[in-house]
Amino acid sequence: MSDIPDIVIGRLPVYLRELKRLAQEEGKVTTSSHELGKRLGISSAQIRKDLSHFGEFGKQGTGYHINYLVEKLQEILHLAHEWPVALVGAGYLGHALANYAGFQPRGFRIKWVFDINPEKIGAAIGDLTIQGINELRTTIARENVKMAIIAVPVSVAQEITDTLVEGGVKAILSYVPIHLEVPDNVQISYSDPVTQMQRMTYYLE
Amino acid sequence: MSDIPDIVIGRLPVYLRELKRLAQEEGKVTTSSHELGKRLGISSAQIRKDLSHFGEFGKQGTGYHINYLVEKLQEILHLAHEWPVALVGAGYLGHALANYAGFQPRGFRIKWVFDINPEKIGAAIGDLTIQGINELRTTIARENVKMAIIAVPVSVAQEITDTLVEGGVKAILSYVPIHLEVPDNVQISYSDPVTQMQRMTYYLE
Repeated sequence: MSDIPDIVIGRLPVYLRELKRLAQEEGKVTTSSHELGKRLGISSAQIRKDLSHFGEFGKQGTGYHINYLVEKLQEILHLAHEWPVALVGAGYLGHALANYAGFQPRGFRIKWVFDINPEKIGAAIGDLTIQGINELRTTIARENVKMAIIAVPVSVAQEITDTLVEGGVKAILSYVPIHLEVPDNVQISYSDPVTQMQRMTYYLE
Repeated sequence: MSDIPDIVIGRLPVYLRELKRLAQEEGKVTTSSHELGKRLGISSAQIRKDLSHFGEFGKQGTGYHINYLVEKLQEILHLAHEWPVALVGAGYLGHALANYAGFQPRGFRIKWVFDINPEKIGAAIGDLTIQGINELRTTIARENVKMAIIAVPVSVAQEITDTLVEGGVKAILSYVPIHLEVPDNVQISYSDPVTQMQRMTYYLE
């Protein structure tokens, strides 16, 4: 599908995030790989090399026009249009995600929330109404949802993942602390605070 | 400090997590790099190579004794004792983190919660009482806290990070979607759902 290393793709959203901050919070119009690298703790050579996979975005001496580079990175990452997202799990974390203001300015909007607990169904979560898990597959398929976030108990996570995949979801962000099986044509990304913390304690006395 | 690649260190918590599942949920006593790899979508050769940095844990033919390998991985990752953790930020995400049952069985316990909002100070969050941010530095230093989680607004994140570092914190898990500056002897790890989702949309049409 692409011969660009996934680790390069993984850095593009970080560049995009910092470029938008430079423009919006500091009113900058241009920047350089040196400035960007210094702000991100990444070498300027790495940034230039990463971006060179996708074309020529800067000029020797004048650097990058921020708005232009933002637009190009958004195109590369397929963010020209907003991605509607289904959230499965309306516990504490589900509530935090449903109320998170950081999705929409960066290309995503949670539009559906599902929970397995019958007592939660019909309750409001922000502007949304919690739907039952039995509506998950049909809703996903009918609305052509491609992206989902799961924040459910370990015991039901694989089953819900399977349902999402059957409904046509192609990318899943999982907050469940287990490895999940998905077909090769489905992206999955994990967020587990404990693995991140254990990686750090290795370096502590 | 260590000549073992950080990417190898990053996989050890994932091995540990899966080994504990194998023992606790499936009652297994031994496993192999093949079985572990299949369950994690990682090659068995990779697992053997990663573990070989730290010694000989398995035997040809019989594989790994799970409890022994769990114990060794916990030693390597410095998880023999529980790490007390300070949480800064008692918003939706802070509440989700403070109520998360997954920390304690895996070596961490949130013991202090701080917030900048005077109206939240003194309120309960699980078993804890929210403290004011003005107590952050002294509490961290007095209690010898080495690890913190921050879930605060972007605008105050660097200042709070600086306070944590001044108080003696050596590892920070940040849910704030910006790069934060820390000294070389302080670990920092980031969790930003949007960068993870944007990495996936690259691969979608």
